[in-house]
Amino acid sequence: MPTGTATETRLVLTDDQVRGLAKLGTPLYVIDEGHLRRRIRRYLAAFKSAWPNSELTFASKANSTLAVVKIAYQEGLLIDVASEGELRAALKAGVPASRCHLHGNNKKPGEIRFAIEQGINQIVVDNFEEIELIGGLEGKKPDIMIRLAPGVDPKTHAKISTGQADTKFGFNIADGSGEKALLRCLELGLDVKGYHCHVGSQLLDPEAQVSGGELLAQFATDMKAKHGYETQVINVGGGLGVHYVGDAVPLSVEEYCRQLVASISKALEPSGLRPMLVQEPGRSIIGESGVTLYEVGVVKTVPSPTKGHRVYVAVDGGLSDNPRPVMYGSKYDLVATSGDGRTFGPTRPTTVSGKHCETDMLFEDVMLPEDLRPGDFVQVLVTGAYNSAMASNYNRYQRPGTALVRESGEAVLVQRPESWDEMFAREILPEGL
Amino acid sequence: MPTGTATETRLVLTDDQVRGLAKLGTPLYVIDEGHLRRRIRRYLAAFKSAWPNSELTFASKANSTLAVVKIAYQEGLLIDVASEGELRAALKAGVPASRCHLHGNNKKPGEIRFAIEQGINQIVVDNFEEIELIGGLEGKKPDIMIRLAPGVDPKTHAKISTGQADTKFGFNIADGSGEKALLRCLELGLDVKGYHCHVGSQLLDPEAQVSGGELLAQFATDMKAKHGYETQVINVGGGLGVHYVGDAVPLSVEEYCRQLVASISKALEPSGLRPMLVQEPGRSIIGESGVTLYEVGVVKTVPSPTKGHRVYVAVDGGLSDNPRPVMYGSKYDLVATSGDGRTFGPTRPTTVSGKHCETDMLFEDVMLPEDLRPGDFVQVLVTGAYNSAMASNYNRYQRPGTALVRESGEAVLVQRPESWDEMFAREILPEGL
Repeated sequence: MPTGTATETRLVLTDDQVRGLAKLGTPLYVIDEGHLRRRIRRYLAAFKSAWPNSELTFASKANSTLAVVKIAYQEGLLIDVASEGELRAALKAGVPASRCHLHGNNKKPGEIRFAIEQGINQIVVDNFEEIELIGGLEGKKPDIMIRLAPGVDPKTHAKISTGQADTKFGFNIADGSGEKALLRCLELGLDVKGYHCHVGSQLLDPEAQVSGGELLAQFATDMKAKHGYETQVINVGGGLGVHYVGDAVPLSVEEYCRQLVASISKALEPSGLRPMLVQEPGRSIIGESGVTLYEVGVVKTVPSPTKGHRVYVAVDGGLSDNPRPVMYGSKYDLVATSGDGRTFGPTRPTTVSGKHCETDMLFEDVMLPEDLRPGDFVQVLVTGAYNSAMASNYNRYQRPGTALVRESGEAVLVQRPESWDEMFAREILPEGL
Repeated sequence: MPTGTATETRLVLTDDQVRGLAKLGTPLYVIDEGHLRRRIRRYLAAFKSAWPNSELTFASKANSTLAVVKIAYQEGLLIDVASEGELRAALKAGVPASRCHLHGNNKKPGEIRFAIEQGINQIVVDNFEEIELIGGLEGKKPDIMIRLAPGVDPKTHAKISTGQADTKFGFNIADGSGEKALLRCLELGLDVKGYHCHVGSQLLDPEAQVSGGELLAQFATDMKAKHGYETQVINVGGGLGVHYVGDAVPLSVEEYCRQLVASISKALEPSGLRPMLVQEPGRSIIGESGVTLYEVGVVKTVPSPTKGHRVYVAVDGGLSDNPRPVMYGSKYDLVATSGDGRTFGPTRPTTVSGKHCETDMLFEDVMLPEDLRPGDFVQVLVTGAYNSAMASNYNRYQRPGTALVRESGEAVLVQRPESWDEMFAREILPEGL
């Protein structure tokens, strides 16, 4: 379903780059620094141009490699952290807590206390227990954002849609919970900055975010009329998709910001409210700046009852380094690269499998060269988001490293591949066993 | 679809045990040593009783915690390793390589060499490249098993069915690849012990394994008739299911072994072959001996367009410690435990979500007490397999520890919870960033 009209250029490594990077070991996550910085600047410019009083927060769950978080911070983004661990990542990357927002539907009391001790800028409250907890703490309090469930059902994968009424996240607007949460925060003397929602991820058009933003604007209007509370911030979350595969291209970030801002500002007009607008992109910041590099292993043609035959190409990773094909049925575009300057012949439908001891089908029926052979490489495009972040040790695979291609062209490891000592560091054989 | 007539008793912790174990931190994986040892003994006895010349290999991908692998070895199981990492786990657990079998559809040459250097007992060859590689190595060679794709389509989840003709695994029988592989191994002077297949996982009845076993028996018969090669071993893989949820109960292991052996031995009869029979259970060894313990956090009732309302209970883990609900739509039985001796009132349909910053729905519409409250615990049954093995750091969560309840009743950590230092050990901030 192509809905976009413009797209970023997705990162693709050259044959030379692949040859050099493969020496760092495969599988390898690769992030291009220049590509990432340009993407952030473009997104920031697009949003500022549509609504000057605006900020972008990087949803670090997409990729909390310290180098990535640091680059996002350097480029002027706030950092959205959804756990104590993500906050620790931001701190280690040199981001002050005063530039971080804490999210989460079930923050542990210890997490909240840790964040406040560090001087977190904002906590996005999600439930009444949390409001009471923060209200009851001594000392300086963070700014508060109220996460609202606006009741928007986005047309995305059910597992990553979060803005519908039936969600674990936030306070429902329609049943009055949102209003109660606001009033309770104000009663407790908390410094409520405004409202937050997040309607879903990997959306190719802004319809759901627009609806979410309008509902927040309406809620803000109502709360001003009923209670005189004037919101200073409206955060419409993230959600803009990336160009994963084929012609499923998201709207350009300029057009996306324009449409989003136009509808929200129109909805706000009668209220006279002119809050800061915030977006929280994660995938749409880092996704297209990353590729995963695999080495080709076994190439095998087997009989298939439905296809006559099927060509399997096994790569040296799998669901441990990219669980998204199994988890979400995610599809990707692939680029075969010899790494030795050799050019390839015609392509054929190929199924790329991982080396895990289960089906581990990564990419079914992608077009790859007939003369792809062991020792060649496959680049999986647009894997900057939710790949290293979700990696596991399944089958006792060492988690891959991440290389950063600097703007000078030099490639450096920003995450080492896991060592065997690290793999087994947490194991204890009890006495007498 | 209940197909079984008997079941193991699945591990459920007592209120007292939960109180004690929770002090080790939640989420926590818990394995009961006595339960595991009894399960192994029962499986071994059932198989030996059906076919005395038999062995069981523990598929360590299900859970390669060193303590688990060591217990399996102590109880007389061989260890099936599907990677260099799993072999290293076995070695660290004190299992000699001479008790290990190496699997894999895309073994790296380095993996094969490492396994042989360590003195691996068997390599299950999966493709011709591997046969050539092993054939070309100097020095002592391991025993060889030939992995065959018998062309059985088991009625299980497509992602974990591996024995159909259209698979990345093994040599197809029907197209002659299996025969070619055997002949090439013999030509190279490799010591071929026999044939292997694995038709799928979590099967509640033995139909697919029986078919797979019969096809291997037929192939063995053919190879004897055509080439005079007499197989010494037939390994029919794993695949017996566990009792995850409701009344979906697998066949008892006694009945399963009886049916499997009856059909294979009948199929072998005309050939006069009486090979050793091997099974490779993983999940059906360790699955029911483990539970995952979560602490209850936020309890929230929200409006639902389809249900009127939905009760959400958030626990302190999620898809990072159990990706199976998202990956495979897996369902589990849950037991609420107060840990303080309190008994619960009536139950209601409840959706248990994780704390990750996405939908992270773990268990939808399970029956849990109306008076379940923050600080209570939920045990997720039958999580001994493919939970700690697949854990990730998604959202920068520390991976949980694993506690072993010894036969004395004492609980000890056999895997420490991950530390923050471990979380960030692989990160490098390059100079000048």
